[in-house]
Amino acid sequence: MGPSDREYCQTTFRIRYAETDSMGVVHHAVYLVWFEEGRSAYIRERGWSYADIEDSGYFLVAADLKARYLRASHYDQEVTVRTWINEVRSRAITFGCDILDTSSGEIVFSASLRLICVDSQGRITRIPSAWKPWLVN
Amino acid sequence: MGPSDREYCQTTFRIRYAETDSMGVVHHAVYLVWFEEGRSAYIRERGWSYADIEDSGYFLVAADLKARYLRASHYDQEVTVRTWINEVRSRAITFGCDILDTSSGEIVFSASLRLICVDSQGRITRIPSAWKPWLVN
Amino acid sequence: MGPSDREYCQTTFRIRYAETDSMGVVHHAVYLVWFEEGRSAYIRERGWSYADIEDSGYFLVAADLKARYLRASHYDQEVTVRTWINEVRSRAITFGCDILDTSSGEIVFSASLRLICVDSQGRITRIPSAWKPWLVN
Amino acid sequence: MGPSDREYCQTTFRIRYAETDSMGVVHHAVYLVWFEEGRSAYIRERGWSYADIEDSGYFLVAADLKARYLRASHYDQEVTVRTWINEVRSRAITFGCDILDTSSGEIVFSASLRLICVDSQGRITRIPSAWKPWLVN
Repeated sequence: MGPSDREYCQTTFRIRYAETDSMGVVHHAVYLVWFEEGRSAYIRERGWSYADIEDSGYFLVAADLKARYLRASHYDQEVTVRTWINEVRSRAITFGCDILDTSSGEIVFSASLRLICVDSQGRITRIPSAWKPWLVN
Repeated sequence: MGPSDREYCQTTFRIRYAETDSMGVVHHAVYLVWFEEGRSAYIRERGWSYADIEDSGYFLVAADLKARYLRASHYDQEVTVRTWINEVRSRAITFGCDILDTSSGEIVFSASLRLICVDSQGRITRIPSAWKPWLVN
Repeated sequence: MGPSDREYCQTTFRIRYAETDSMGVVHHAVYLVWFEEGRSAYIRERGWSYADIEDSGYFLVAADLKARYLRASHYDQEVTVRTWINEVRSRAITFGCDILDTSSGEIVFSASLRLICVDSQGRITRIPSAWKPWLVN
Repeated sequence: MGPSDREYCQTTFRIRYAETDSMGVVHHAVYLVWFEEGRSAYIRERGWSYADIEDSGYFLVAADLKARYLRASHYDQEVTVRTWINEVRSRAITFGCDILDTSSGEIVFSASLRLICVDSQGRITRIPSAWKPWLVN
């Protein structure tokens, strides 16, 4: 049920030493940071920037997260973050993400995150129509 | 469906400046670090330490996470992490956690995380019987 | 040349799992976060909060850092952060800090950081006289 | 007194959202993580990897740090890390680093870090001769 090639954004980078923990693997909280970078890249690829979004006075805040950790990953390994939009509602966007070991293509982490649109006072609001360019492929 | 008072571990601390992001609130990945500290405290309260667990050659690795972000939290705010065990299986333990704004008692974050027991080669194994003292209340 | 007992603020906590790296010890960037928490505690102990400072429209930004790493520290270990003010100038404050292994009393990290006062536009400004209550012991 | 073009390693990336703090700028501890990635890239460019170094049973641990924070940097900005070796001694290596705003070329952060060579028991040791390929240009 993954996204087709046309719909997702793909970004690749190396794992940092600071992202590992005493177990010798990437700490489980770090995958959320990579998923966030996947969303940044998704928006940037469509000619926007999350910084632009915030400048317009709206924010996307995390609401519901489901994540599966499938394999460990290690310092200096290359990983690829694939990010797509699962669903757009009037006040929420759900992103999906697979993180792969770049060399083997195996999925190491898979998640979906529902984000809610809020204004600068933190009130839940409708997604501004100005966002359409990056929301609709 | 929360835990009874008898079963959970509670730990309170202040939010660090480094845990916030440009939005002026705690970054969503940080809650996973607090939940992890909740599990550490849970084990410690039962006379063990997660460091002891690792010294015995077994590790608990994150497998499945469900999390809900209910309210924003801010620098210098006091939060209380309540941690309990939802379920113990032969090879997995599921922890639950609520994080509360200490002064209002409102829940800001709620999650459950299934952890799998692995040996030092990363193979999934049965939970050692030596862990019973902290697994069984 | 350390501070006298009267002048410094002391705060103790346990090392988090997420603060370690593949080497099995605390990552060297984490000590800066602890030092920052030491400064927060120093200000709080004098009846202020760094959040109050920012609400007044002024910020303290890092300018010059000198740090020595003397010993490794590990997950679950208790550390004590001792923080004091080395020097106050018209536009800058220099904090000093020793971080100790709480049980042995040995210093694991020692640093000084000069912070510069800026306004909300990022311009260097004089330290507001309103800060005197926490700047002068 | 910077390095000549021939001697340094240069690596460019975008600033992550999680690297910012409530002040809307990159948290001061994050620069140490980028400097570390600069050292990783330096070693990799010479056909080695810091992972190889650790596999050989030796580690480089932070000992002395001097850092200057010259300008703020922000989410989504591109930064370039320039890393070089300042000095090699029998038991220590000192790296230097400038971090630049990629688009303007202005230096935002500048640091030097002395690292000490230790064995797997944490004892200070001579730098292994096997490291020569990446230590000598």
